[in-house]
Parts: sequence; structure tokens; C-alpha cells
Amino acid sequence: MSKRVAVNGRLYNRSERPVVVVCVDGSEPAYMETAMARGRMPWLKSLVEREDSTNVLAESVIPSFTNPNNLSIVSGCPPRQHGICGNYFYNQETGEEELMNDASYYRAKTIFKAFQEAGASVAVVTAKDKLRKLLGHGLDFSGGTAVCFSSEASNKANLSDNGIENVNDFVGLPVPSVYSSDLSEFVFAAGVKLLERDRPELMYLSTTDFIQHKFAPEEEGALAFYEMMDGYWAKLDALGAIVVLTADHGMKPKHNSEGRPNVFYLQDQLDEWYGENSCRVILPITDPYVVHHGALGSFATAYLPDGVTADEACARLSSVAGVEVALSGPAGCDRYELPEDRMGDIIVITEDYMSVGTSEDRHDLSALDRPLRTHGGLSEQVVPFISNCAMPALPNDMRLRNFDAFYCALNYAV
Amino acid sequence: MSKRVAVNGRLYNRSERPVVVVCVDGSEPAYMETAMARGRMPWLKSLVEREDSTNVLAESVIPSFTNPNNLSIVSGCPPRQHGICGNYFYNQETGEEELMNDASYYRAKTIFKAFQEAGASVAVVTAKDKLRKLLGHGLDFSGGTAVCFSSEASNKANLSDNGIENVNDFVGLPVPSVYSSDLSEFVFAAGVKLLERDRPELMYLSTTDFIQHKFAPEEEGALAFYEMMDGYWAKLDALGAIVVLTADHGMKPKHNSEGRPNVFYLQDQLDEWYGENSCRVILPITDPYVVHHGALGSFATAYLPDGVTADEACARLSSVAGVEVALSGPAGCDRYELPEDRMGDIIVITEDYMSVGTSEDRHDLSALDRPLRTHGGLSEQVVPFISNCAMPALPNDMRLRNFDAFYCALNYAV
Repeated sequence: MSKRVAVNGRLYNRSERPVVVVCVDGSEPAYMETAMARGRMPWLKSLVEREDSTNVLAESVIPSFTNPNNLSIVSGCPPRQHGICGNYFYNQETGEEELMNDASYYRAKTIFKAFQEAGASVAVVTAKDKLRKLLGHGLDFSGGTAVCFSSEASNKANLSDNGIENVNDFVGLPVPSVYSSDLSEFVFAAGVKLLERDRPELMYLSTTDFIQHKFAPEEEGALAFYEMMDGYWAKLDALGAIVVLTADHGMKPKHNSEGRPNVFYLQDQLDEWYGENSCRVILPITDPYVVHHGALGSFATAYLPDGVTADEACARLSSVAGVEVALSGPAGCDRYELPEDRMGDIIVITEDYMSVGTSEDRHDLSALDRPLRTHGGLSEQVVPFISNCAMPALPNDMRLRNFDAFYCALNYAV
Repeated sequence: MSKRVAVNGRLYNRSERPVVVVCVDGSEPAYMETAMARGRMPWLKSLVEREDSTNVLAESVIPSFTNPNNLSIVSGCPPRQHGICGNYFYNQETGEEELMNDASYYRAKTIFKAFQEAGASVAVVTAKDKLRKLLGHGLDFSGGTAVCFSSEASNKANLSDNGIENVNDFVGLPVPSVYSSDLSEFVFAAGVKLLERDRPELMYLSTTDFIQHKFAPEEEGALAFYEMMDGYWAKLDALGAIVVLTADHGMKPKHNSEGRPNVFYLQDQLDEWYGENSCRVILPITDPYVVHHGALGSFATAYLPDGVTADEACARLSSVAGVEVALSGPAGCDRYELPEDRMGDIIVITEDYMSVGTSEDRHDLSALDRPLRTHGGLSEQVVPFISNCAMPALPNDMRLRNFDAFYCALNYAV
């Protein structure tokens, strides 16, 4: 067994114990804190009270969206390096707006692929199928050392594409609805089964934030969801794995007291200042699943016409109520470690209570069945970072990121 | 002609005018300022007094050494992405200390290669041959669209390895001594000839800091050197090129009033604290050319034994006189954008007046023929960034780096 695995400029020790990283989509720290305080997460509560565990906060990558963070966690590096900075971007070379769901947009190598090449076995289970292709990029399913599938397409999993078949029989659960907490529960049920059967060296379990978009931490919909997860995590722990629990991003209410969304319509504002459609606003949260957020997040980028400088636009935007950050593309990409070729001339981030949209007439808010809770900004950057192991040599001066999960589990957990 | 070239996460516009980036090795801003003030750089002086030019300061990458910065300038990204973080590193996988002169250590793609693939012609001339292979990585010399050679090995240049032959006849100069200002003069003489003959779309001219290590800005050795360069730069300008002048790093005197070097011997200190040779100190400035600095810079990294945490070592080092920064490997790599697999458990940077060594008995200071002037730290991070073009749309919020030279020339120069 080779001693260390090098990938994306970092070295990872191999582990005798299986390592399981859990990414709870949209898990604002208050969710676990509230559920523990109300006695709904007994395993987690006793864990964080132990001396030999880790319970700290970490930072997600910005934009605090699902795909950039999932890809960072499985790559151990920021989006500048792996290229996935949202669901959606404007391709300046072709002039097209493109979904970044396909693995061809990914520019790094996953930790799983590097470990598989070094002889390790790996398993990845994700809720939505849109993420599965990206997470499983480059894995070799021919040798029985990799498994990668989604709950959503669990009935379609096969040996050649996923390294596993008859998943629903194996897990003992039917294909869940894409808009349900079952989609995430399936991930954990499968994870426990895989750990029992294969004991893979690395496992990654990634959920969907359907529940967190709908329910605040103190609501029963959220409490029941965290209670469910607690039971599965206890099993992963009991099976002897090094477990690290983190999140891709947090979640904040962005609605007023009447329950209507607080939205800054950036395209409308730029149209007013610089002429209709002279600027192009891109919301990287945009994807085919709009029910839970109506394509409203707290992060936008925009392309400016000739003659309008980033300085001029940022100066105006900085004085708009609810705008937290307005930076030029180069400055924003430098600060948040984003790929410049997939970001525009300016980057706009809204505050914790405010979302950002394009034009008012392009958002169908009727699809929102609950007051808007969403993410994407700096206010959703703080996430839990919890392990059933202590990490005494972890440097105090290190800026801990959610994408350090495998790094810490493999290099610091004792 | 394709409109834009994508490389390392950035987009570069193509240019009708040839672009020449000049990297003056070790060009602390005071060198040009002093030479201009004393009337020795008439072209540069009149340039910076014009409205339609650019004269600002930029930051180098840390460590402020030659190779990390040259590779950043030709890649448009920090060392974390391209992998070259010094001349020298400790390979934890093999247990060997290795020179990083070979292109196999480089993890990115040069701007030259990307432009050549897009149909552009490119030319690279560097003083020392050790840098030539890295800068020319991946270029195709078969089609007459790339030239890459060094002054040092100008007599060995041939069509298959360098895209040019009979360089000394072409330039009209013999092979210069490696320890001379002629080595750098040859770079500019060749650059002017190449611009006249080939008018390449991109050109990169990179000198050696032999003069700056020896002479302070007000000394005649330095003044004559900058006067020489001024004449060549005027020719590049007159030939119609967009010219950007920058530096890989600055240069500071690190000696006491008797002319003896100020050195913090890190290996000796760690030996005293933790036991002889229990730690391994690496000085990434180390290379076969030791005459001008005796392998003394202001940046070191070290590997700690089991049982000594980075926190513990950094806390002690932070109180040592002359130590400016002592960070854990992960924190230092995050802050300075370095590849973690080529850095140790701690990173140590010394102040402007102080250099850092390994053990006193491992540095042959008798090779130093002048009081020590060197670089590597934060105090040598500020460098000139001068262009014969204005860049009115360059965002004010952008942290300007020397490695933005091609980006600014291609995307912002008017």
C-alpha cells in the first residue's frame, strides 16, 4: 500500500480505517444545534460532548452553492482549480449560457480517482443524479473497486456505469421522489450497507437540501430529518469508520414578515442604469429544479457592455440596500478563488436577508410553496465540521474549509 | 483568428499588436526610480510622465524567488496551480530532495502554448538555461511559430529544441558569461531582433538578477545596467509592441553595518529545540548558482518530527528576532497560494533585513564577494508594473500581481 496519495497539490495519507465524509446539503449550523438541544440527535449530542471528537465550524466556498462545494470537497481545492463555480455559466467563447452538469467542465481530479489509482476502493452516493456524473468523474468501474450512484437514479444503476446493480434490493428501499427527504435518507441507508459489505477505504455521502429550503431549524420537518440522519450516522460510527460531517453551504430566510421573498433584481437595475439588455446577468444557482428556491440565491455575476467599467458598476451597486459585495471579476475571482473564464465583469453578493434575481418577470415565484430560504452568499458560508475522531495536531492557524474534510480525516484524525 | 484564448482558468484576448512582457529579475522598484532620477533611463522617464502609460506597483508571488514568479507570469496563476514553488523541494513520497528545474514538475499550461495552439506565434528568451525548459514547456518547434532559448546556451540553440539556430550570428553577440550583465543584455538584444524579424504575437524576455544581488540601486553597477535596458526597451516600444515591464521579485540588503550577512539559522534552532536533525529544513532558493547569495534567502520550509505540532513550532518561531511569519504548512499554502505537497509542516519568512539559512556549517559564505543582498520574503514582494499603454478599465479593486502582466496587456491595454 503506497503511503501517500498526491492529488491537486495536496498529499493524503492512506487509512487503515474506512473514512466516511458526509456532506449535508444546506446544513446551516443551527439545524444540528437545534436538533441536539431538543433531544432529536442523541448520537451527535453525546459525540460532541466527548473529549476525543472534533466539533468546529468551517467555511464553504463562495458561491455557497451545492455543486461548487461538492466538487471542492471531493477535490480538496477551491473552484478556481476544479472549474465548477455554479450550475450555470456564460461561455464567452461560444456566446452560449451552459449548464455545468457534465464532467467535461471539471478541471481537476477527484480524491476518489487518485485513491482508486493508488489501489484503494471508493464509494460515492449522492441524492440527485445531476451531481453523480461530476463526483464519479474518471472512476474505473470495471475492477470492483468503485461504486458511484444517486438515490434519484438508483433503479438505473448498473455495473458498467456505477459499479453496482440492483441497488434498491440491496438497500431495501424503492426509488425515492426527487422532492422528498427520502432522497437523502436513501443515501445514508445505502452508505451503511456499503460500509458493511465492502468497507471501502473512502466513502462520500451527499444529500439534497430540499428540507432545509422548506423548513427552519426549529420546524418539525427539519427536526425529523436530522433525527433520521443521526440514526444512520450512529451506525457508520459503530461500524468503525472515521466520520467527518460537514455541509456544502448554510441556509438563511430571505423573505419579509409577510413571507414574500426579498429580491434585488440585478438585471432590472443594470437595465435602468445602462440600457435594456446591455448587460447580461448570470445566476449560477439556476438549474432545472426550481421548486425550492425559484432560482433565487445570493450570488450573481454580470457581463458589462463596452464603455462601462467594473469600477463604475461596483461603485453604484455597493450603495444598493441588501448588496453585501460588489467586486470586479478579477478581484472577486481572486478573493473567492473562482475561475475567471466562468465569471463575468462583476460579482455581486447579497446580504443574509436578501436574494438576487435577474428581471422580475423572469422568476416564477408561484413555484415557491414556502417563504424563501436560500443561500449563495457570505452569510451561508459557515458550516459544521464534526468528526468522531480528535484532531490534536490540526494547526490552529489553518483556515478550515469544508473541502478539508478528507484532508483532515486522513492526515489529522487520531 | 479565434477571439479569446482560455488557459488556467482565465481568458486572454488576442492582440493585433505584438505584446512583449519583460521580467527584470530582482528589480526592486528603487532601481528604476533611482536610475530615472539620475537621468540614466531617459526613455522610461518620459514614458511614466505621459498620460497614456501605466506606472503602478504589483505584488510578486511568495516565495519571492525567480522560478515561482517566472512560471506564474507565463501561466497567469499562482504556484498552487502550476506547482513550481522554488528551485528545490523535499519529495515526501520518495524521501528525496529534488531540484525542480525539469518541466515534469510543472502542472499548468503556459500562456505561450495556449496561444500557439490557437494559431499565434510566440518567442521566449531567458538569461539562464535552467529556466528555459520550464518556460518552453509543451511548445511545438516544428512549425516555425515558437522560439525559446537562453543567453547562457545561445550557442547550442537549434531548430528542433529551440525553434531557432545560429543565434549568436543573428543577435550579433557571443555567448555571455553566466555571471555577468551581458547575460541579460543578450536577452534584450535578441528580443529586439526577434521583434523586427518575426513580430511574434507574444514575447517574453526574462533576465537574471546577478547585478541586483551585487549592487544597490545607487551604485554605478546597477545604474549602468538599467541604462542599458532603457535603450533596448525604447527599441521595443518604437517597433510598435505593447510592452509591460515587471519583475519576479525585489531585492533587499540583508547584512549588518560591517557587511556581514544577517542570518537566522533555522536548522540549528530547530535542532536545539527538538533534537539534532529531527527536523528537516528546506531552502527553496537553493540551486547550483550560489555565488550571488550563498543559498540565503528569506523563505524556508521545514518538516517536523512526530509529536511536534506546527502550532508549537510556530509559536516559538514567532518570537525569534527577524522572523516575520511562521505559519503551519496548510495555513501558509493557503495564504501564499502554494502547493501543499511541496511545502513542509511549517513555513518561515524572515524580515527585510534578515535572511534564513539551514545550519551555519552548511553555508559557504566565502563565496559571497559583496555584502549580502537577497530576496524570498514579503519585503521583496513589491515590484514595478509599467506599460507603454494606458489601462483605463483595469479595475481598482483588483489585487495586481506580476503574473497579471499578459492578462493586462491583452485585456486592458489601449
